[in-house]
Amino acid sequence: MTVTAPKGFRAAGVTAGLKASGKPDVALVVNDGPDKSAAAVFTSNRVAAAPVHWSRQAISDGRADAVILNSGGANACTGAQGFQNAHTTAEKAADILGISAGDVVVCSTGLIGEQLPMDKILAGVEAASAGLAADGGHDAAVAIMTTDTVPKESVFTGTDSEGTEYTIGGIAKGAGMLAPGLATMLVVLTTDAVTNPEMLDVALRDAVRVTFNRADSDGCMSTNDTVVLLSSGASGAVPGEVDFTAGLTQVCAELARKLIGDAEGASHDIAIRAFNAASESDAEVVARAVARSNLFKTAIFGKDPNWGRVLSAVGTTDAVFEPDALSVTINGVEVCRKGGIGEDRSLVDLGPREVLVEIDLQAGDAEATILTNDLTHDYVHENSAYSS
Amino acid sequence: MTVTAPKGFRAAGVTAGLKASGKPDVALVVNDGPDKSAAAVFTSNRVAAAPVHWSRQAISDGRADAVILNSGGANACTGAQGFQNAHTTAEKAADILGISAGDVVVCSTGLIGEQLPMDKILAGVEAASAGLAADGGHDAAVAIMTTDTVPKESVFTGTDSEGTEYTIGGIAKGAGMLAPGLATMLVVLTTDAVTNPEMLDVALRDAVRVTFNRADSDGCMSTNDTVVLLSSGASGAVPGEVDFTAGLTQVCAELARKLIGDAEGASHDIAIRAFNAASESDAEVVARAVARSNLFKTAIFGKDPNWGRVLSAVGTTDAVFEPDALSVTINGVEVCRKGGIGEDRSLVDLGPREVLVEIDLQAGDAEATILTNDLTHDYVHENSAYSS
Repeated sequence: MTVTAPKGFRAAGVTAGLKASGKPDVALVVNDGPDKSAAAVFTSNRVAAAPVHWSRQAISDGRADAVILNSGGANACTGAQGFQNAHTTAEKAADILGISAGDVVVCSTGLIGEQLPMDKILAGVEAASAGLAADGGHDAAVAIMTTDTVPKESVFTGTDSEGTEYTIGGIAKGAGMLAPGLATMLVVLTTDAVTNPEMLDVALRDAVRVTFNRADSDGCMSTNDTVVLLSSGASGAVPGEVDFTAGLTQVCAELARKLIGDAEGASHDIAIRAFNAASESDAEVVARAVARSNLFKTAIFGKDPNWGRVLSAVGTTDAVFEPDALSVTINGVEVCRKGGIGEDRSLVDLGPREVLVEIDLQAGDAEATILTNDLTHDYVHENSAYSS
Repeated sequence: MTVTAPKGFRAAGVTAGLKASGKPDVALVVNDGPDKSAAAVFTSNRVAAAPVHWSRQAISDGRADAVILNSGGANACTGAQGFQNAHTTAEKAADILGISAGDVVVCSTGLIGEQLPMDKILAGVEAASAGLAADGGHDAAVAIMTTDTVPKESVFTGTDSEGTEYTIGGIAKGAGMLAPGLATMLVVLTTDAVTNPEMLDVALRDAVRVTFNRADSDGCMSTNDTVVLLSSGASGAVPGEVDFTAGLTQVCAELARKLIGDAEGASHDIAIRAFNAASESDAEVVARAVARSNLFKTAIFGKDPNWGRVLSAVGTTDAVFEPDALSVTINGVEVCRKGGIGEDRSLVDLGPREVLVEIDLQAGDAEATILTNDLTHDYVHENSAYSS
């Protein structure tokens, strides 16, 4: 059910012929209300795609009635024509749905630097509108896939202080992350809780900060990353901000794990936890530096607990630590102790897909975890063959 | 001849048994004077190897009489024992050569987090000392190789204002760079020009800044990177600082090209030139961002002129530019013009090993070029199998 699990939403996923594979490539999610509150976060890449420029405007009033998404083309670096195409797509959906184009969020993903085939896009919008269903969330999740091998979906159910139930649902695509991101990450979240745009904005930024922004597949930031949250208020439940944010964070965390778990070519899912840090920011910087080391990531692919590549990445940061106080534990084995040689590295078992690297900074009590994956032959293969 | 091309130097390369392969692994370069001026630059990694800590002290007085180098072990993250081992190595060389241990620079490269087998190291120092020869530069170049497939050497010859000839020679190892660096970069430079420590320091930093520091193979910074310059004064030539720096830069540039050309697993040598930048720093930041994009580097491996991956990397920087003013030319074809679609990408020929990517920022008149290579199956293979 995913984005149609909360009351007040319909969705669809259809095949418009944008993908050479003939797989579904246009998705539509509609909020039937009664409320139309919304919030979104976008890529911080300065070379942002046309739909990102459009959607930033559309969401700026805290309202969105629908999200139209396409795979099979990013509509990025496409100039004035590209922006016009995003606008035209929104207008087409708005006309059919009887809403304002300014309340339609547009998302695209695919190859950068090609104009979208607008005849196919517009026919796809028509087909998706005709196919809208109260159980269409899964179809929408499938239609936004690019190199994803499985659709990513998550649902959370909570109750407010009066015991009234509300639901948060989400779909995601992209083997990566928000900023930076591998390929493009697109996420649509829905809820039937009674909210308001300010509450949604705060909750979404909080949730994204500790979930999607800490999933770092390959350090590359997309031009199209978008996370949009729509609220219908249809449940009548009025959750507190803390509870709502916790539920939203749970959905985002599950989707982030699924994105990293399906990252292009990955053979290991790696969690890098920096702890005993002077600040959460320090912990994040340290964990991210390790997550971006190609030498570390290839070592994990080779099942080689090469902890020197962890320390050499940590050493590039300006986080608070003393080099000879650092310890590193890989899958439970403390291979580096106080900057030097710890337990025998041959004790580390890197056979399982899940890998946990823990870095003790001995500088405070803050921590953060970055999710990433290994760098494999298949990553090189998939990304060397993507557009050709 | 390389580091023994200038007068006043002897060198040697011997097999001490540090490498399982049985290849040469200990090198020694000795300055017989009359002058012993020296300068060096080291990794900026805060997790610096024991020999880097030792050598920073040794060079701090602007004098070095000898450089002892080993492959087959980095002596990094080895604690107090590791520092003692670097010290012992310097003392051994000093005893044999009749010089002060404090004038011996020590360099190591290999796996991080293992103690060096000191019996083999000390025997290697003895053998290298016994083997010192006025034509031993090439042997030294061979003995510092790790994953290098060829030794890297360069010689420059110039004249001072009176017509007296002087020479600068250099050897290098490591498929990477100074900061950051792939594996470890070690470089020994020698000259018989009459200089002084201050002039050497300024010239070396100038030369390194625009050569080794602009060769970025895989964005990873080593714990051991060292570039050391020794001056014997034996030619009697007294070049001006500008001429000397130009010659030194030429040697460093040739060595940097050779390092990138032999980078682990690379199938393309890529020069990324950012021009019309507001500042040289902006140009460098932009070119380096592209050089560090795994998506860009895998695309080049796949002979795919995927210019969207160039723009999405440029967009992550804070350099001065307008996104819709950016143009990108790949091997002479302007595939992106003013932020949008330019010439047909199918016109780009990525068959040759040499690739030139030019990014027009339309923001000024500064420029910089970063050298890198593509990300290949062989890179993943070599680095997933390195220590195991």
